[in-house]
Amino acid sequence: MVKQERAARTRRSLIHAAAEVFAEVGFVPASLGTISTRAGVSNGALHFHFANKSMLAEAVEAQATEAVRQLAETARARHGDSLQAVVDAMHELIGSLAKDVVVRAGFELAGDIARRAQSPLRQEWQRWVEESLRRAEDAGALAAGVSWKDAARVVVAVTVGLEVLGGEDASWLSRQNVTRIWELLLPLLTDRREPEALVSSGSRSSAVVSPRVQPELAQPER
Amino acid sequence: MVKQERAARTRRSLIHAAAEVFAEVGFVPASLGTISTRAGVSNGALHFHFANKSMLAEAVEAQATEAVRQLAETARARHGDSLQAVVDAMHELIGSLAKDVVVRAGFELAGDIARRAQSPLRQEWQRWVEESLRRAEDAGALAAGVSWKDAARVVVAVTVGLEVLGGEDASWLSRQNVTRIWELLLPLLTDRREPEALVSSGSRSSAVVSPRVQPELAQPER
Repeated sequence: MVKQERAARTRRSLIHAAAEVFAEVGFVPASLGTISTRAGVSNGALHFHFANKSMLAEAVEAQATEAVRQLAETARARHGDSLQAVVDAMHELIGSLAKDVVVRAGFELAGDIARRAQSPLRQEWQRWVEESLRRAEDAGALAAGVSWKDAARVVVAVTVGLEVLGGEDASWLSRQNVTRIWELLLPLLTDRREPEALVSSGSRSSAVVSPRVQPELAQPER
Repeated sequence: MVKQERAARTRRSLIHAAAEVFAEVGFVPASLGTISTRAGVSNGALHFHFANKSMLAEAVEAQATEAVRQLAETARARHGDSLQAVVDAMHELIGSLAKDVVVRAGFELAGDIARRAQSPLRQEWQRWVEESLRRAEDAGALAAGVSWKDAARVVVAVTVGLEVLGGEDASWLSRQNVTRIWELLLPLLTDRREPEALVSSGSRSSAVVSPRVQPELAQPER
């Protein structure tokens, strides 16, 4: 393995180990020694890559933000300016909280009082939801009398609420729970003339297709 | 001042100072020295009342939980088994996050990874919302096809989301923001035959009446 590859692999291991430790104990009590041990690297190697704990936390947040951006853009590539893109992206986001420790740690760090001012992750999600619902409104996909701003307010608050509640009780993060919420919200947000066109549980492909798949392979099979 | 009164006052000062420090820096970095100095009492006096920082945090959470219970019960006393009780209680809860440091600190502590397992505050709110919406359903106040469980899921997730987002950006906690959310949700939850009977901004009295007022004085003036 060439030197550059090894360095990149060490960096990834450190970010993953840091995410695990941040998610388990929080930012302030997390120890660099625990993180380097868990990553299987020396303290010296850790400090070669990250000058301090804050820089490690920023790397975790950056990777989590990129993961959220990717899953959201995949949903948009699949469904365009429809509400289904928002439904699928929220399912993917909540699902990744349950299975991807980097995304989970990214959100935990966003909620950490000592660090929250700089967190990019919730802002990225809010920005994407607002833009998507504005596009949906422009495309005539929102019900009459519902503004994209109000819809975004509810979708963002619900997502952040699920994320926080899921940290205490994982059943909040279940696909079934998210589906029940969309079953309640969708009739409110959508044009009533075509409610069956939208799938509260996420379109079929969103349940099985990786966010990294090419958009042209990710069309619903119907 | 008799000894007992002085002890009670010292205890209240310590809880208030601890709430301020927990809300500012979080549980782990909070120092007992900072808390006793801010309360204007000696370290010895602090340790007479609270054996350690966890017991102080539990006292803050207990007082916050009692404040939430009181405001929720006041809303119920005023509006019975209607959705208006839930609307008003959510307005009061979000308002108290903005103005009462003990409630704010109670929710911050609930979100602290190191402590979250024992937090009673969100559970108390969830329990009250679920019970209130179950009563509203029994009283025929929920729209056909909407179950109290699903309605509670959304109301609890939105409340926790607002609380967390409000820690980063206080505009999420504004009365206007909460009102916009209810304007979107109420037509969904209520029986369409009487939508005007409910006030998204909270019934008039909820904006001006203290949660400690007697229920018989707290009737809307209409």
